[in-house]
Amino acid sequence: MPHVVIIGGGFGGLSAAKALRKAPIRLTVIDRHNHHLFQPLLYQVATATLSPGDIASPIRWILRHQGNTRVLLGEVCSIDLNAKRITLEDGAVIEYDYLILATGTSHTYFGHDEWAPHAPALKTLEDALAMRRRILVAFEQAERETDPARQQRLLTFVLVGGGPTGVELAGTLAEIARQTRAEFRNIDTRITRIVLVEAGPTILANFAPQLRDAARRSLQRLRIEIRENTRVTMVDANGVVFGNERLDAGTVLWTAGVAASPVSATLGVPCDRAGRVVIEKDLSIPGHPEAFVIGDAAAFLGADGHQLPGVAQVAIQGGVHAAQTILRRMRTEASRPFVYHDRGSMAIVGRGSAIADIRGLRISGPIAWLAWLFLHIFELIGFRSRFVVMIEWAAAYFTRQRSVRLITYQDH
Amino acid sequence: MPHVVIIGGGFGGLSAAKALRKAPIRLTVIDRHNHHLFQPLLYQVATATLSPGDIASPIRWILRHQGNTRVLLGEVCSIDLNAKRITLEDGAVIEYDYLILATGTSHTYFGHDEWAPHAPALKTLEDALAMRRRILVAFEQAERETDPARQQRLLTFVLVGGGPTGVELAGTLAEIARQTRAEFRNIDTRITRIVLVEAGPTILANFAPQLRDAARRSLQRLRIEIRENTRVTMVDANGVVFGNERLDAGTVLWTAGVAASPVSATLGVPCDRAGRVVIEKDLSIPGHPEAFVIGDAAAFLGADGHQLPGVAQVAIQGGVHAAQTILRRMRTEASRPFVYHDRGSMAIVGRGSAIADIRGLRISGPIAWLAWLFLHIFELIGFRSRFVVMIEWAAAYFTRQRSVRLITYQDH
Repeated sequence: MPHVVIIGGGFGGLSAAKALRKAPIRLTVIDRHNHHLFQPLLYQVATATLSPGDIASPIRWILRHQGNTRVLLGEVCSIDLNAKRITLEDGAVIEYDYLILATGTSHTYFGHDEWAPHAPALKTLEDALAMRRRILVAFEQAERETDPARQQRLLTFVLVGGGPTGVELAGTLAEIARQTRAEFRNIDTRITRIVLVEAGPTILANFAPQLRDAARRSLQRLRIEIRENTRVTMVDANGVVFGNERLDAGTVLWTAGVAASPVSATLGVPCDRAGRVVIEKDLSIPGHPEAFVIGDAAAFLGADGHQLPGVAQVAIQGGVHAAQTILRRMRTEASRPFVYHDRGSMAIVGRGSAIADIRGLRISGPIAWLAWLFLHIFELIGFRSRFVVMIEWAAAYFTRQRSVRLITYQDH
Repeated sequence: MPHVVIIGGGFGGLSAAKALRKAPIRLTVIDRHNHHLFQPLLYQVATATLSPGDIASPIRWILRHQGNTRVLLGEVCSIDLNAKRITLEDGAVIEYDYLILATGTSHTYFGHDEWAPHAPALKTLEDALAMRRRILVAFEQAERETDPARQQRLLTFVLVGGGPTGVELAGTLAEIARQTRAEFRNIDTRITRIVLVEAGPTILANFAPQLRDAARRSLQRLRIEIRENTRVTMVDANGVVFGNERLDAGTVLWTAGVAASPVSATLGVPCDRAGRVVIEKDLSIPGHPEAFVIGDAAAFLGADGHQLPGVAQVAIQGGVHAAQTILRRMRTEASRPFVYHDRGSMAIVGRGSAIADIRGLRISGPIAWLAWLFLHIFELIGFRSRFVVMIEWAAAYFTRQRSVRLITYQDH
């Protein structure tokens, strides 16, 4: 039976794996984490609302009923497309007949990797826990600080990147500052300053103008400062510089740049500027009809001539398409081009407020927030328990208490 | 108003703080973690049943309604009893009128600190997450291993220390092996070997003989090997040595030794062999009627002439007593001796089975397990939500699924 290998257990990889569950193949799913991550909610772990276990599930467990599938924990080091071989970090070699590359993205500091220690990014659970620690420690240090200028610096948060994650983080930070007022004795958490910086002309560039305006109003009600057309030129331990202006900040969080994961570069095939693999209309790699790239790792233009957005739906639909194309090839049928069906986009802009664009229906405010909530809880299939997550959210919302405010450090 | 400082936000420190909530004092609680930890359930985090957030709550949040109390995140470096001054790691100095030392214990390798990297212990959330990673990675590596001897080594777990934590870990490991069978393709998790090693003559030495026998039977049903009177003489990356016998094991977990936290040694007063401070009958330090030591940090003999056990109740009752003694001293009344009231002890010995000794009522099996469950959930006051934890346990129990099986690594 042909051996199909899927690299990556994110939305795209899992969707492909599930589409192949009854196929007459041997399937291997490789990921460097043992868990699938529900990334749209990662910012809620970073802001101490949800626990890691609420948004992550072992890949092995998700696929346990697929008899044709094995799951390997391992980091892919390189891929030889001509020999159809994958080499893992520990030297193990895996041969394949068909390959689906679903390795997603990592973050990039646009050539300034020296900013990374000062401006953590948000891609993995580890990132989220590090960010959570950063945020909570800032408040603790401010409480112990006696100098007002240094207190203000510690309570200044800069979010670099005005996409949905930056907006969601900004809104949640503003809530934290308001909700924890009663717990501190030396600081008034209302002096917390949150600055959302976007290099492009607008935050939430993928949304319609009226939704952006609604989001801007919500953020301004939370007293979040929005700086558009503002490029960060330096980040260090004390804050950021935009052009000639220096902003002292105790915490800088990075949600700006994405780049394809480094394994794409080992393929020896053309990639775009962000490192995404340029692919055929059927998602296969040019010259390699047995190898596919899906989701964020692929450079693929939609009907509007723009790169498809880096959202779960693109990866999920791509995974299904790649799986179906493999089955077609096994039957020696011709492949079909991939067509992305946009089901809409949403973003949270603070407690009880969101914006949503669902097939042209544009809503903002509490109704959009409720829609966001139920859609995301509904999508948490196979996770810890939709019920548990719903209770935790309800508890966080109604008690205005963040329950997972734990500062944990790396182990020894 | 007199300044009372409590060092440590565990059961003892919090109990003292709450007992002082209406006192005409300024109260400062210092802890090096921002959270209080419900330690009896820490093994459930280590074995992927509960999330860290389920058993930990910010100290600041727990004490938020106490207007006379401030909470500081900081590590105490030394204490000068004569000058009544505390020095924190960052050089900050805090003066006190009354002091309650509730720093608990850390683990000890009996002079063999070189064993620590090979045999992680269980005291903090970080420990529990490291242990969880160790356990989950062992199964993952075994799945990727092709050599049967190495597979068996990876699936051999040695628990050093036959106290309640060792027994609870052993029982839960046996469950994990049984429950995850369907998820692996290359290994049969039933070959998992779990060895519980105790240097003393019996496991669960603090329990009555008939309860120990019941526990032993439960563990044997789970096919856990019990080695009593067995002292570990070496631990390395490949396993353990007892006397002349070498046991190959991929994972060694340490629950054996406890030692008082190092800050006691800076006091310059007599300590016992385990580093616990020798104290007066009213819990104060000899010659320092304004300074108290409670819980695991104190050397204190009970009515039976033995050191009080290292359990939450000793710390909680000691905290209340120290707080009351401070109030008596402020009124220049004589102090009273501390008397510990034993409310019983319990331990889990596998899924649906426990032993309990409640004021002489000795029960074992499912009833003891239910009693354990409800008492512990009942005690989770102020935590994430008793309700959430109950649902998670019920889900883990009835679906036989461990939901928090996440392998997370230290952040960058």
